[in-house]
Amino acid sequence: MKRIKVLKSVLVSNKQRAQENRQQFDRMNSLVINIIASPGAGKTSVIERIVEYFKKKRKILVIEGDIRGQIDSKRLAKLGVDVIQINTVTACHLDAFMTAQVLPKIDKKYNLILIENVGNLVCPAEFEIGEDYKLAILSTPEGDDKPMKYPLLFHLAKVVVINKCDLLPYVDFRKNQAKKNILRENSKARIFEVSAKTGDGFGKFCSFLEKELNAKEKKG
Amino acid sequence: MKRIKVLKSVLVSNKQRAQENRQQFDRMNSLVINIIASPGAGKTSVIERIVEYFKKKRKILVIEGDIRGQIDSKRLAKLGVDVIQINTVTACHLDAFMTAQVLPKIDKKYNLILIENVGNLVCPAEFEIGEDYKLAILSTPEGDDKPMKYPLLFHLAKVVVINKCDLLPYVDFRKNQAKKNILRENSKARIFEVSAKTGDGFGKFCSFLEKELNAKEKKG
Repeated sequence: MKRIKVLKSVLVSNKQRAQENRQQFDRMNSLVINIIASPGAGKTSVIERIVEYFKKKRKILVIEGDIRGQIDSKRLAKLGVDVIQINTVTACHLDAFMTAQVLPKIDKKYNLILIENVGNLVCPAEFEIGEDYKLAILSTPEGDDKPMKYPLLFHLAKVVVINKCDLLPYVDFRKNQAKKNILRENSKARIFEVSAKTGDGFGKFCSFLEKELNAKEKKG
Repeated sequence: MKRIKVLKSVLVSNKQRAQENRQQFDRMNSLVINIIASPGAGKTSVIERIVEYFKKKRKILVIEGDIRGQIDSKRLAKLGVDVIQINTVTACHLDAFMTAQVLPKIDKKYNLILIENVGNLVCPAEFEIGEDYKLAILSTPEGDDKPMKYPLLFHLAKVVVINKCDLLPYVDFRKNQAKKNILRENSKARIFEVSAKTGDGFGKFCSFLEKELNAKEKKG
């Protein structure tokens, strides 16, 4: 596990820097997913399930964005996956410059790069970091109205994972209403229902990811 | 219910403007609480319980901070409480200038002003808005590690409400560990355990608030 502290540069626009990052990721034929969710929605647990599914088949890197600490990096490193920690210190989101500082530390060709953004539904959606696409996680205890309250993320996310479906009997979450609310922001969103706790739904979700990985590798 | 759209000014520092807001609130002897939590942690539901407890005894105003929409304002207005909506449009937090724009709309003397910040554990903690103190809500499905990952809020919050305790049998949340993590950031934090769904714990929590209201009113 590698760890860096980052400071923001303002010399080049974030969008431009994100584009440069994307070019570098593309040269490695890596599928890069920017994972965005509320604190505690289960980003790390979802990543753990994806890592378990793919770790024998593909080379995976996880980039962990946190204000402080390495709690999630340590969890993931236990699975034997490569992890790079970014501590944003005060920033409530990753940006393209922080991500750019990670690039020189990437010394292997990875098939899949999962970037766990800071837990926040607002600003992480506003900053591209060089990802192929954004994946939003919505956990059932948060309520089905979140896509309406935090519209930009759900507008931009190509994939939305509804997590903690094991808690559906105990929380006031109308699954169909949640899907309607997501699709109202983005009619093309791919929605998957999972429980990172039980593993339910990851077969279907990871098959989808596998197709995306295959498509990316063909391009190379 | 009144509704305003706000834009940020940068002419005076946020801290200075917050101080001016505080002076205005103090002239009304209002107890002003800045409520900060993740999206879906139950801010509105906790406010509903507080309103139900106090609405016959005290004059209450709720100021609702949301990126977009009036979903929560409409919920609260149904309880017969006065509500002012602030739509932050793109900002991930309330600041003192947005709050200052609300002040001229306050045409009554309120005993208790509850300000529901945008759902976010990071930036709302960084911007004073003129509150007496910050109240953080941590919901059990989010996990007990959140105070370590989002330290500033838990460092600054005088009161921490652990919500969704009705879900404790179904989630991996070590209550004692959560309390340790909170107290590590702020050894003076007052911690309450509640369920906004069942109402459990609100007797104790609202008795505490009542003492604070009494103290504030004595000052007047």
